[in-house]
Amino acid sequence: MNADVNPEPIMQLGLAFWGSKTLLSAVELGLFTELAKGPRDADELRSVLGLHERSARDFFDALVALGMLDRDGEQYRNTPSTDLFLDRTKPSYLGGMLEMSNARLYPFWGSLTEGLRTGQLQNEAKTGGDFFGVLYQDPDRLSQFLHAMTGISMGAAHAIAEKFPWHRYKTVIDIGAAEGCVPVQVALRHDHLTGGGFDLPAVEPIFSKYVEAFGLSSRLSFHAGDFFADEIPSADVLIMGHILHDWALDEKMTLLGKAYAALPSDGSLIVYETLIDDDRRQNAFGLLMSLNMLIETPGGFDYTGADCSSWMRKVGFRETYVEHLVGPDSMVVGIK
Amino acid sequence: MNADVNPEPIMQLGLAFWGSKTLLSAVELGLFTELAKGPRDADELRSVLGLHERSARDFFDALVALGMLDRDGEQYRNTPSTDLFLDRTKPSYLGGMLEMSNARLYPFWGSLTEGLRTGQLQNEAKTGGDFFGVLYQDPDRLSQFLHAMTGISMGAAHAIAEKFPWHRYKTVIDIGAAEGCVPVQVALRHDHLTGGGFDLPAVEPIFSKYVEAFGLSSRLSFHAGDFFADEIPSADVLIMGHILHDWALDEKMTLLGKAYAALPSDGSLIVYETLIDDDRRQNAFGLLMSLNMLIETPGGFDYTGADCSSWMRKVGFRETYVEHLVGPDSMVVGIK
Repeated sequence: MNADVNPEPIMQLGLAFWGSKTLLSAVELGLFTELAKGPRDADELRSVLGLHERSARDFFDALVALGMLDRDGEQYRNTPSTDLFLDRTKPSYLGGMLEMSNARLYPFWGSLTEGLRTGQLQNEAKTGGDFFGVLYQDPDRLSQFLHAMTGISMGAAHAIAEKFPWHRYKTVIDIGAAEGCVPVQVALRHDHLTGGGFDLPAVEPIFSKYVEAFGLSSRLSFHAGDFFADEIPSADVLIMGHILHDWALDEKMTLLGKAYAALPSDGSLIVYETLIDDDRRQNAFGLLMSLNMLIETPGGFDYTGADCSSWMRKVGFRETYVEHLVGPDSMVVGIK
Repeated sequence: MNADVNPEPIMQLGLAFWGSKTLLSAVELGLFTELAKGPRDADELRSVLGLHERSARDFFDALVALGMLDRDGEQYRNTPSTDLFLDRTKPSYLGGMLEMSNARLYPFWGSLTEGLRTGQLQNEAKTGGDFFGVLYQDPDRLSQFLHAMTGISMGAAHAIAEKFPWHRYKTVIDIGAAEGCVPVQVALRHDHLTGGGFDLPAVEPIFSKYVEAFGLSSRLSFHAGDFFADEIPSADVLIMGHILHDWALDEKMTLLGKAYAALPSDGSLIVYETLIDDDRRQNAFGLLMSLNMLIETPGGFDYTGADCSSWMRKVGFRETYVEHLVGPDSMVVGIK
C-alpha cells in the first residue's frame, strides 16, 4: 500500500475524542491534583479517586501513553507540565477551561452537524438556558470561571508584556479584562504604566482582589460597564483579547469603532486571538475555535490577521501589523 | 518558560475532540463521497451538503488544516487517503466505523467518568437498549455494519495473509467472521487453502454474498452458531479478530479453551487485536480501546501480547508468539 494512502491518520483523528475525553475525565476527577501531593500506585490512586477496579489501570496507563502521566515501576506521578498546569491548588492551574469543556463543550459539540446545517448555536441557549447569565449571578462560580480565563490568557499576557513597544505609552486598559491577567503582567513588567480593566460590574470585586494580590491597586483600577451599551474608557493602549471572535461582523465593527473613538491620536488597539492564518490552511486550532463560536454564540466567528487589519483600517486606524505571541495566539495592532 | 513545561500539548489533547467531531460530522454529511465526484468550490459544496452559510467555510478549511481535504485556489478536493477510504461508493470505504462513532460512541464516551466510577457500560444498554440485538434483526443495517467491520479489518487481513506460515496448513476458519474479510484475503493469497467463517445465523447471507463476489464460494463456506452456546468448528487454523477484547477474563478463557479443543494437534489459533504493549506505556490506542470496551461491554477489556500468551498456555497451547501486523494491530499465535 502506498505510504501516502493510509487509513491510520483518518482513524486516529476520527477516534481522537477517546484520548481527549480521557484527559477531561482525569481533570474532572482531580487526578493531577491528587498526584501533585506525591506518587501513588494504581490501587492507592484508584481508591482516593473513588474509581471502580475494572478499568482504573487502563485509564491511568492510557494517560501515561498520552504523555500526561509518568510511571516509575508501579508508581504514577505527574509530568512536569501536568503538575504545573493541572494541579488545582497551584496558581498556574489552567484546568478550568478543561473542566468547562468536559461539562459543556464536549456534549454541545455532539450537535455540530445540526449547527452546520442551521447556523444556530448549540449550547444551553438552544433550550432556553443562559450559561453566562447564570454564571454572572453566582460570585463563586464567576470567580472560578474568570480564574480559568486567566489560566488560558497567561501565555499571551507574558508575550504582550514582552513584545509590544510599551515605552511609547503611559496608560493601558484591557476591554473585557476578567481578573486582569493581561494588565497585571504588563504592569509588572513596565513600571511606568498605569491603567486597568473594563468589564461587567459583577467582575469588579474579583478584578480588585486579583490586582491587589500583586500589589498593583494604586496603578490598575476597574471600570464597570457593558461594551455595547456604554462608552469604552480611554487610554493610550486598549486591549481586546478573545473578545471580538464572540461577535458577528457588524458587532465586531461596532467594538472596533468604539475602541478607535476612545483612543487618543497615536494610541494603539491590541486585538489578540487564536488568529487563523491568512491562507486559512495551517492553523487548525483557529479554524476549530471558529466552529466553537458556532456552538457557543449566535453570530461569532474567528478570523485572520488580514481580516482584522482590514476592519481596523475601515474604522480609521492608520496603520496595522500582525505579530505572533505564543502557541496559537497572535495579536493584531492598530495605530490611530 | 522551560520548553518541557508547556501548556500547549495539554490544551491540544483536551480540545482534540473538536477536530475529531469535525471529521465525524464530515463523514456523516457525506462530504468525501461528494468530493469523490470532483472538486467543488465552497458555495457548491455548501449547497450540495445542505449547510448554512455561517460556518461552512470554517468547516471546510478546518478539514484542510487537519489534512483531510486539499484546496487548490477555491476548489476543495479529497486527499488521496480520504478519497480511497471515505467515499461511500468505493469498496475501500471505512467510514462505517466513523459513522457509528459519530452516532453512538461520541455521546456514550461523554459518560466516561461515570463508567470509571461504577465499572458499568455506558451505551444504549444502560437505559435498556440493545444495539446489537436490534442490529442483528435488521438485515440492511446488519449488512452495513458488517461491511464497516470489513473496512477496519482489511489492513490486518492483508498482513495475516502475508505473515502467517500458511504453507504448513490446509484449512482455516475465522471465528466471528462477519463478511469474511480475513478468510477471503487469506484464500485469495493462498490457493491451497479451504475453510470459511463462523458467525451468528443472521450473518450467513451477507457472508455468502461477499465470498461469492470474490469467486471463492467453492473454497469458503459459512458455519452458523453462537460461540458460547455451540461448539466451535474445527480447522487447522482458527482466527479470532477483535473478539476476545469484548469479553471478561472468564469468557476469554472459555473461548480460548474452545478454540484449543477444536484444533487438531499442531493446529494454530491466531488472535489479532489492537494489542497493548507489554509495558503498557506506548500504545495509547490499545489502552483507549480497552476504555471503549468499558463503554460498550459489561466486562470486556484489551490486553497485552504477554497476557494473551499466558492465557493460551494456561488452556494448553504448547507454543505462542506475538507479531505486529499493521498500524495498531498485532497477532498472538498459539500452537497446539
